[in-house]
This record gives sequence, C-alpha cells and structure tokens, in this order.
Amino acid sequence: MIIDIHGHYTTAPKALEEWRNRQVASLGGKGAAPKASELRISDDELRESIEGNQLAKMRERGLDLTIFSPRASFMAHHIGDFQTSSTWAAICNELCFRVSTLFPDNFIPAAMLPQSPGVDPATCIPELERCIKDYGNVAINLNPDPSGGHWTSPPLSDRHWYPIYEKMVEYDIPAMVHVSTSCNPAFHTTGAHYLNADTTAFMQCLTSDLFKDFPALRFIVPHGGGAVPYHWGRFRGLAQELKKPLLKDHLLNNIFFDTCVYHQPGIDLLTKVIPVANVLFASEMIGAVRGIDPETGHAFDDTRRYIDAATTLSDADRQRIYEGNARRVYPRLDAALRARGR
Amino acid sequence: MIIDIHGHYTTAPKALEEWRNRQVASLGGKGAAPKASELRISDDELRESIEGNQLAKMRERGLDLTIFSPRASFMAHHIGDFQTSSTWAAICNELCFRVSTLFPDNFIPAAMLPQSPGVDPATCIPELERCIKDYGNVAINLNPDPSGGHWTSPPLSDRHWYPIYEKMVEYDIPAMVHVSTSCNPAFHTTGAHYLNADTTAFMQCLTSDLFKDFPALRFIVPHGGGAVPYHWGRFRGLAQELKKPLLKDHLLNNIFFDTCVYHQPGIDLLTKVIPVANVLFASEMIGAVRGIDPETGHAFDDTRRYIDAATTLSDADRQRIYEGNARRVYPRLDAALRARGR
Repeated sequence: MIIDIHGHYTTAPKALEEWRNRQVASLGGKGAAPKASELRISDDELRESIEGNQLAKMRERGLDLTIFSPRASFMAHHIGDFQTSSTWAAICNELCFRVSTLFPDNFIPAAMLPQSPGVDPATCIPELERCIKDYGNVAINLNPDPSGGHWTSPPLSDRHWYPIYEKMVEYDIPAMVHVSTSCNPAFHTTGAHYLNADTTAFMQCLTSDLFKDFPALRFIVPHGGGAVPYHWGRFRGLAQELKKPLLKDHLLNNIFFDTCVYHQPGIDLLTKVIPVANVLFASEMIGAVRGIDPETGHAFDDTRRYIDAATTLSDADRQRIYEGNARRVYPRLDAALRARGR
Repeated sequence: MIIDIHGHYTTAPKALEEWRNRQVASLGGKGAAPKASELRISDDELRESIEGNQLAKMRERGLDLTIFSPRASFMAHHIGDFQTSSTWAAICNELCFRVSTLFPDNFIPAAMLPQSPGVDPATCIPELERCIKDYGNVAINLNPDPSGGHWTSPPLSDRHWYPIYEKMVEYDIPAMVHVSTSCNPAFHTTGAHYLNADTTAFMQCLTSDLFKDFPALRFIVPHGGGAVPYHWGRFRGLAQELKKPLLKDHLLNNIFFDTCVYHQPGIDLLTKVIPVANVLFASEMIGAVRGIDPETGHAFDDTRRYIDAATTLSDADRQRIYEGNARRVYPRLDAALRARGR
C-alpha cells in the first residue's frame, strides 16, 4: 500500500476561489462578506474535480491513499482577522471532508487551522476538534508564520504554541509544519518561503528543548525538510556547538521528513542521510511543480519513481517509507485503515 | 593551488568587538560614540590572531589562499544608521586589508559594504571603490537583507540594487550574497537565516531577468547554495512553469555556489547536480560550525576532505573547483596572483 501524506485540494471547483475573492474584497470595503452558506458545490462537482486530477494521477502512479488538506497557498492566514480565517478554514476543511466521504478508499483529511497573525493559537482549538471528531481528520497543518513571510510569530518552541501541542498530544495527531502564500516580495512562495520555513522550523526545534516538554509531539517537515538533509552535517555540528544531544536523540523521535523532493539526486541524499524511520512518502501533487522534467520525461512531482529507483533502499525500507511510517506517525490514519480492514 | 573563496575574519582581536560594543551602546544613549581612531590594534596582534587560527588550519588542510572578508555575523547592518555602518565597515575592511598585507601569499580581501535598512545602496559606492582601488579587494559581500531577518529590502532583481551592480560590472568583481546576524527571533542566524537567504536570493534571480540587464554580473551563493542544489528539480520545474530558459542558460552564467556544505553526502549532491564550472571551493572556517564530526573524526568545516573524496570528480574537475573557477569568477584575484608570478 502506498500512502501519500502530503496532498492539498489544489483543484477545488472555481466557486471556492470566487467565494474567497468576495470575502477578501469585503475586507477592503467592496461589498458585503459572503456567508459560508452562499458557497454551493455539489458532490458531482467535487467528484469531477478529483477524478480527473488527483485520483487520476494516483491511479497512474500506483498510489492508494492521500492525506488530503486544504490548498496550502490559499490558507493565506495573513488576510483579515481571526473571523476571516475561521470562516475560511471551516469551508475548506468541510470540502476536504466531503472529498474523503466521496472517495473513502483514496482520501483521508488533514485540517488547516484558522490561524491569524497576533492571535492566540488557542482560538484554533474548536476547529481542530471539530475536524478530528466530526470529520475524521488524522492530522493538522500548522503554519509557523501566519503573517505570510514577515515572521512575526514566536518560534515553534515558544509557549505561545503550547495550547495546540496539548491538543495534538491529547488526540495523538501529528502536525505538518506548512506555511502559506508569502506576501513579502522578498520571498517567492513555493521557491523560497516554503523551503525557508521548513529549515526555520527545524532549527527552532533544534535550539530548544520543546520535545522534552512534549515527548509525544510529532512534526512533519515537508518538502524533504527544506535545506536540512542537504546540510545535515551543519545541523549536527550546530547541535554539538549548542551542547544538544545527537540529532537522532534530540529531534528524530519527533520530526519526520516527507519526500517532496523533485529529482533523483535529492531523494538519494534524503534517504541516505535521514534514517528510514523518519522519511514518509509524499508528492504534493498537483502542486507547485506540475510540469514534465525534460531530463526524465516524467512529472517532476512523480516522487514514487525516485523512491523506487533509490539504490540504497531495501524493499523493507520502501514499505516503511510508503506505508509503515505513515501508520506509525498518524495513528488515526492507521486506526481508520484497520477499521476498513486494510 | 587551493583557493578558499569564503573566509571571514572571525578571530579579530577582542579590541574590535569592544570598540563595536561602545559604538552600539552609544546608539542607546550610553556614552559617546567612539572614534575610528580610538581602535588600536598592532600588526603583531593581527598576526597572532591569524597565525594560530585561520593560517594554522590552512596549512593543516593544505589550503593556499583565502578570500578574506569581515566577519559576516558582525556586519549587523540593522544596527544604527548609515553613519554607524559606514564607520564600522571602514574599520572592518581596513583590518582585512592589513591582514592581506601581513600575509600577502595567503589572504586577499573582499569588502563588506556599509549597508543600512532603507538607505539607497548607492551610498555604499565610496567604500566599495576605496576597497578596490586602495585595498586591492577582489569582491564584495552583498547583504540582501540589511534589516537582519525582517526582509524589508526589495528583491535583488529590483533597480534598487542597480547602482551596486553597475560598479561590480565596471570593476569586474563578483558579489557573495551573504546576510548577517538575524535579529528576528524566528531565524537562527547560521542555522536558518544564512541558508534561507541563499535560497531566497537564488529564487529572486530565477523569477527575474536581472542577468539580461547585467550579463556580466556574477553572484556567489554561499553555503552550498542553501536549499537550491538539493531541490534542483524543484527549481528547474519552477523555471519551466515560469517560462524561463533552462537554468543553465538562465542563471548559471552568473550564479556560482561555494562548497560550504559540511558532510560528504551534501558535497556529493552538490558536485553531481551543479556543473563543475559553477562550484567554487570554500570552507568558511573558522565559522559557524567549529567542532569535530564524531562520525569522521575530522572538522565539520574541513570541506577539502569531501571534495577530495567525491568519487564523481576527476582531477581536472577538482582543479577547477579549487583554483580555476575562482580565477575566472574573480578576475582581480587572478590578476593579483599573476602579478606575483602565481
């Protein structure tokens, strides 16, 4: 079984974007804010948006199940206030839930949170709980920079974030640490901000003792961990300078990397440097890089090909990367699969 | 001959830091600002600070020459105003120049600029010209974020920076794109901000047509290019989505990566993915990661070992990485060496 732990609903029907555009316009005084109930998308529209896109590619690539969350770049927590984010998160999470009920064998939801810059993360707990209890979500996406590239929040090791962590531990769910659109012109969203955030989050954990406070907390650092595996020696050395334990003891019981690295040499490095137990299969398709690599003739984001071709991995390693690690890191995913006899 | 293109004067006599502390204190109203002339460091003190440190390690590692610039983390362009940075840059550049005259076979200077957030970069030109004409500098360090982690400057592709580029082209010098200390608590300086800046700068160039305006402009992206080589497929794919030429044509006539990657798998990836013509030897010692790697028994930043051990490189490749590329990318270095019969 192959589980893709990193999929976003990037192909939602146009009505979603139109609703959001009206919401954003209303913040600028243009028109009234739309009600959530004004967004109407039928099951058929949802089916269509998935069948010809994510599901088609999953079948093509032999992927069985995707952990599916709202489009990351559309979270845009920097827009408006908590109420703006709250309405928007509720809508987006409901759509991912509906996709999971329409395609229960292929999609299981993860939640975006109604974060807002400067607002206490504890305000996100009602939506988090609704997504877990009512929608069967198996994880959350946590944005370490709801300001969208201005980095005004405290580091992830700060007590600011503890209310979220307490709930994550209570419900035994991991968080993917995932930023959204950059509104800072210095940072290209998918080419700089995403990767920078991955590196930044990892280093915030490294310099802290967060996982002493929360030994059961689990973060997935996406996009192959940003710059981290490539600079693994640097991070090992910095930890040593800071008198921290070896990274495997200090961080690798709690931090995991996905395989959203879009060429063979990158995956080879990732799987060589990072213990197999900490690598989880993912593609983030249909996402930032949708084209065909002229050097291979295959989609850049068809990451299964790179894992299959990685010569240092055994079949047992691949099974862990494709399935075993995901079941371990996402216990609610495992439980949901077992309940369906898988 | 082995040229290390990335060395900072991290071991300057304590008097330098004390002078700076007084300067910074004066900005907070504590005492008068010290005059530049109040800093007195003798040639013997300079010699001692180098001989037992950088030079000792260069001899140990078989490195011949270092391109030597003021300590990156001490540039701290976010402190004070232009006048603060101007006095400080002048002092720091003079010290590196003096080191180069004391050890002319082993050190050649590169300049820091008196950048200041929100100040026109054209104000840096007098110091830049002084460093080239009077001090024989062969390059500059350009800080894309003088705010120190708040990223308030326009992207490197913006006309804001063009006055510097015009001078770089006029004098045929490259710039190493290098940030300084982060004063944003989200970013650890050497573990996040440095690497993020490398990735960010590369992406700023990728999305622009900067090198159409300045075909002769040359940037060195340090720390092995941040996250870039590890995500080379992502960047190739993003360039393709943006309808840019292939990266080798779009950027690799102008952008070069150093080898400050502190473990073998990282160097293996770098030298495999990036054309040899774009890789320049560097260690940034004595810098961010000063310890011994317990996995190898050697210094993390002893990058020569990784280059020597990279199995995909031929002897001719190594010669280019160690010397040939540096002479090509830094023509004033080449001229200075030739003038000394090297």
